[in-house]
Amino acid sequence: MKVDGIPYRSIFTAADGRTVRVIDQRRLPHDFVVVDLSTRDEAAVAIRDMWVRGAPLIGATAAYGMALQMRTDPSDAGLDEAWRVLNATRPTAVNLRWALDVMAAVLRPLPPAEREAAAYARAAAIADEDVAINRAIGEAGVALIEAVAARKGGGPVNILTHCNAGWLATVDWGTATAPIYMARERGVDVHVWVDETRPRNQGASLTAWELAGHGVPHTLVVDNAGGHLMQHGKVDLVIVGTDRTTARGDVCNKIGTYLKALAAHDNGVPFHVALPSPTIDWTVSDGLAEIPIEERSGEEVGWVWGRTAAGEVTRVRIAPEASGLGNPAFDVTPARLVTGLITERGLCAASPEGLASLFPERAGR
Amino acid sequence: MKVDGIPYRSIFTAADGRTVRVIDQRRLPHDFVVVDLSTRDEAAVAIRDMWVRGAPLIGATAAYGMALQMRTDPSDAGLDEAWRVLNATRPTAVNLRWALDVMAAVLRPLPPAEREAAAYARAAAIADEDVAINRAIGEAGVALIEAVAARKGGGPVNILTHCNAGWLATVDWGTATAPIYMARERGVDVHVWVDETRPRNQGASLTAWELAGHGVPHTLVVDNAGGHLMQHGKVDLVIVGTDRTTARGDVCNKIGTYLKALAAHDNGVPFHVALPSPTIDWTVSDGLAEIPIEERSGEEVGWVWGRTAAGEVTRVRIAPEASGLGNPAFDVTPARLVTGLITERGLCAASPEGLASLFPERAGR
Repeated sequence: MKVDGIPYRSIFTAADGRTVRVIDQRRLPHDFVVVDLSTRDEAAVAIRDMWVRGAPLIGATAAYGMALQMRTDPSDAGLDEAWRVLNATRPTAVNLRWALDVMAAVLRPLPPAEREAAAYARAAAIADEDVAINRAIGEAGVALIEAVAARKGGGPVNILTHCNAGWLATVDWGTATAPIYMARERGVDVHVWVDETRPRNQGASLTAWELAGHGVPHTLVVDNAGGHLMQHGKVDLVIVGTDRTTARGDVCNKIGTYLKALAAHDNGVPFHVALPSPTIDWTVSDGLAEIPIEERSGEEVGWVWGRTAAGEVTRVRIAPEASGLGNPAFDVTPARLVTGLITERGLCAASPEGLASLFPERAGR
Repeated sequence: MKVDGIPYRSIFTAADGRTVRVIDQRRLPHDFVVVDLSTRDEAAVAIRDMWVRGAPLIGATAAYGMALQMRTDPSDAGLDEAWRVLNATRPTAVNLRWALDVMAAVLRPLPPAEREAAAYARAAAIADEDVAINRAIGEAGVALIEAVAARKGGGPVNILTHCNAGWLATVDWGTATAPIYMARERGVDVHVWVDETRPRNQGASLTAWELAGHGVPHTLVVDNAGGHLMQHGKVDLVIVGTDRTTARGDVCNKIGTYLKALAAHDNGVPFHVALPSPTIDWTVSDGLAEIPIEERSGEEVGWVWGRTAAGEVTRVRIAPEASGLGNPAFDVTPARLVTGLITERGLCAASPEGLASLFPERAGR
């Protein structure tokens, strides 16, 4: 998507075809800085220290990290070491391990001299595959937005989103944002309500920044505001992403998603979840009972990052020193509150039958 | 309530019986500073610049402001001027005007020489009346907490609250917090989930600070967390305050209250609203349709106040410069989501009949 008129992906190679470039997302929304990753270790740091985040982008960065390794040491030992070093950066990221395994499977059978070129080709393919999946999600989801536009017959389609399931979390398009960007491309009048998404403020720092850069009209609101907006007819559609969707359509996503689903349900606002099919966990049915929710550091609740009037990016403490701090990072929205799922294969109901209709080869296994 | 073991009210007179003392609430939770108000103008600044906030405390401060005026100029002209100056500090605060009118009605018939003593006596009575109302709310509401404790038969009663309807907003006890402090006084094991309450963070900076000072176990969470906590049985009871309750029991309160009411309803968690009866607006029935919601400055959303690691209290910008900022300040929770109201006359259903049962002299007029 565009940043101030210039199209970007969240990861790409420089003109030399070898240096890898990513956006240092820690510095958003205050500074837009593209950094060069020239070595495997730099790629590892970018993942570990969260210059890049979002499962698809982590996977692509790891794949390019393997390619960077092949430039200097394409031996079997180098391959094994790169796998170990990169895999250790974010222990729970499923896409990370998947991408490393794909790369290793491609590279190991080849003679070392051929590995560098093959690695860059396969890493590029991993990135392109993610873009294709997200574009397909956009094409499926844009129909929902166009339908609202046709029904309203004028004025913007107001879409509320939570957290960042945007192009910055993927290689391009994003998941929840793909239908929005696609609508914009087709000339549909859209306006996005962006939930701040405490405690890490990904809505404020990433989604709002993305939309501003691409020229999509939007308004940042606190997480508390969405219910009121829906009560007053100011939201036509909710679209969020997900970290994990169960086989019956329960949706695990950033903390607070469930509250927006309740408000949408109470006000007759359609609530859709955009997801690439690899995030469907076919082994889990009851999301509330079966998905363990990560309790993250209370530091994220007690402190807020931002930029002072003097221009310094720093954090400030907002909580009393003596108070306990709780930080559950995700919640589960039961399928009964989800109007529909938006996948790269199209739309379906958030139900075992709905998912089986799109993924017959996986359902019921 | 107590601050580090020492009992305080939010407004009181010094040992001289004339100097008025308040807490500079702008500096909480970082600094606990009690300031002296020695003149009418200092009282006006304290109200206008929000050293004090909360309708009951604003009223009491205005009353003492009149008393301070009587020390130096108890003439009719001085009385009129004090009324004008103090009334202009917060134009929409109903309690402010009410307190000034009460004071003027008491003072005007008296000879000027008697006005100072009478003013201090009446201001003290206004403060005491507020304390009595809140204590009565506490006595009514504590039964709800004791009932949960009896049912659970062990472990803390977990209460979630939103914003600050605490003793800092009143003269003492608070409204939503009164049952909690009363439970604590009676030895009931309680634990409070404190919603941060973006965008002004009154939960983090005021409620958490209050509870810490009084020694009430509590955990600060982001506004997004409450639904998840309720889904997992971690909330036994929600108690919030209100700015305005309609004759049918719709509740206008800080933005985000409605989302918590939805989550409570979805999870079978009782949702109670504590209110002094003067905040019932008998002229309004349908809160959603009839109560205009204040849209406040987007600055409150775009910037966050806190203390840096170096100790400086400052604000940081969290939003992109190019993003629009929306800031509806309140929302309306429909009566159907409110389990009950806690008033100084006892508990009642959030319905015309419920309110009429406690306030027969007002209902149906």
